[in-house]
Amino acid sequence: MVIDLNSAVEFLRERDNFLILSHAHPDGDTLGSAFALKYALEAVGKRAEVKCCDIIPKKFDYLGKSCDGECAYGTLIAVDVADTKLLGKDFEELYADKIELCIDHHGSNRMFAERTLLDAGAAAACEIILEIIHLLGVKPDKKIADCIYTGLTTDTGCFRYSNVTPRTMRMAAEMIECEADNVTINTVMFETKTRTYAALEKLAVAGMKMYLDGKCAVITVTQEMYRVSGSDESEVDAIASLPRQIEGVLVGVTLRERKDGSFKISMRSNRPINVSDICAAMGGGGHPQAAGCQVDGPLEAATETVVENVKKYIEKL
Amino acid sequence: MVIDLNSAVEFLRERDNFLILSHAHPDGDTLGSAFALKYALEAVGKRAEVKCCDIIPKKFDYLGKSCDGECAYGTLIAVDVADTKLLGKDFEELYADKIELCIDHHGSNRMFAERTLLDAGAAAACEIILEIIHLLGVKPDKKIADCIYTGLTTDTGCFRYSNVTPRTMRMAAEMIECEADNVTINTVMFETKTRTYAALEKLAVAGMKMYLDGKCAVITVTQEMYRVSGSDESEVDAIASLPRQIEGVLVGVTLRERKDGSFKISMRSNRPINVSDICAAMGGGGHPQAAGCQVDGPLEAATETVVENVKKYIEKL
Repeated sequence: MVIDLNSAVEFLRERDNFLILSHAHPDGDTLGSAFALKYALEAVGKRAEVKCCDIIPKKFDYLGKSCDGECAYGTLIAVDVADTKLLGKDFEELYADKIELCIDHHGSNRMFAERTLLDAGAAAACEIILEIIHLLGVKPDKKIADCIYTGLTTDTGCFRYSNVTPRTMRMAAEMIECEADNVTINTVMFETKTRTYAALEKLAVAGMKMYLDGKCAVITVTQEMYRVSGSDESEVDAIASLPRQIEGVLVGVTLRERKDGSFKISMRSNRPINVSDICAAMGGGGHPQAAGCQVDGPLEAATETVVENVKKYIEKL
Repeated sequence: MVIDLNSAVEFLRERDNFLILSHAHPDGDTLGSAFALKYALEAVGKRAEVKCCDIIPKKFDYLGKSCDGECAYGTLIAVDVADTKLLGKDFEELYADKIELCIDHHGSNRMFAERTLLDAGAAAACEIILEIIHLLGVKPDKKIADCIYTGLTTDTGCFRYSNVTPRTMRMAAEMIECEADNVTINTVMFETKTRTYAALEKLAVAGMKMYLDGKCAVITVTQEMYRVSGSDESEVDAIASLPRQIEGVLVGVTLRERKDGSFKISMRSNRPINVSDICAAMGGGGHPQAAGCQVDGPLEAATETVVENVKKYIEKL
């Protein structure tokens, strides 16, 4: 059942002993949403805990402490979770059929919960959570402000992506007024590279190649590079944005070698190129400016396949 | 004479045939301010032109067309100009003693103009310009919105620096509502590297060295690197932010070799390190998190001097 904001707030007022689930591989928005909701519920006299299937990266420690181990609950909520699969394997088994309220901003939400509060126009789930907090009559304190600001900035690439709306900016303004530590949060989220990631990026960028008269830039990340840099797949996502940044590049491609020798392809484009179309031709998909697919190795063949598909698309333009 | 917002607006209403000067080496804020003010003055029936001592980089073409060559005027205004020196040598001679109104947000403004409207709490001069536009009764159109948004985002590093206030975020929200092309502007300003800059960055990052147990990271840019990459000093500024990004680094240093063999030093720090103190000990200065100085070559001696000064500061902490 799809419910509106007021019904969701009414539901929260009626219930107690909440367990709030984030999605697996947690990011700033799912965690910011979960902890902000927890603090707001506590502010109106309820009990609430946050739980995530995966270990929460240390950089999010300032958001709060999740419940480790067994955690009794009366009402189960999921935030920023579009599909029960995204809860993580263990949590899917434990909780998938027991979620009474899901609060989400993904248009692709599978409506798995008893009640779903969905706002696909929200850049971050935190936007919906802040509206709930307002309706609960809670004045955001510094802890809540840090959580909400974290979701707003991380899900918009620091207010850069096309999902940003005036509401996103105004909510960020309000959170700064409520003492969110915006400068430190952005430094940690966007300006800090682990030493191992920095080493990996250096190796990968050193091997960047240009194709199609500079319209297509390709970066390759090999298993050997992970070994040499001490990095691993958990850190590689940020590299995908680099090849597109070169002036004149329409399509930026990152090939990541898997342990089985196949390649995971990430494509990023500048408008009007639609990389989700290019990736669909190779059995993948995604968004117009960010998509992906898989291609078999070895590297030379994989690169050729990808560049050939980019070429076909560009020639048709 | 320091004047307030209302007096500045009154002055603009009384006068006509404005020539609006930006500072030399123009950036998004001085140009955004100048063109937004020009369009607003035109909207209330006045004539106004924009002029800059230096060539305006192509990436700012969307803001508008400046007046080339001779340009008759009745009233001379400077925006985002803290000192007549910053007008550029030629313009300083031509205009320094004729500026009737300066609109600025630098606390260090030298009060060289007949009237100065100063708001040192504004993250960008564009914040002050937008307030003027409101008081002139002009509803910002898309052109004005693009200009103001450009100033807001470039002077705050995409809403990241500590100068951002709730007003900055709310003004950005308003400009998005007025159809500022925020996504493209941010892509051009923050996500686009020229091929020559990308080549220079690759060379410089490949040679990054760590000192003081990883607390100090040093990047060197040599004349040879400019030659090999095809880049030059006009593109090097962005490199200064890179060494500080490595996890655990407290002070990021960039040494840029000059043609005479001396080095221009840029220092960036994470709080609580105050690099303006470190640079002051070497005859330079700046802000707590971003400062600079000059050191004689050769490279080995320059590096040693700088690292030694960083070490002394850190040991005293």
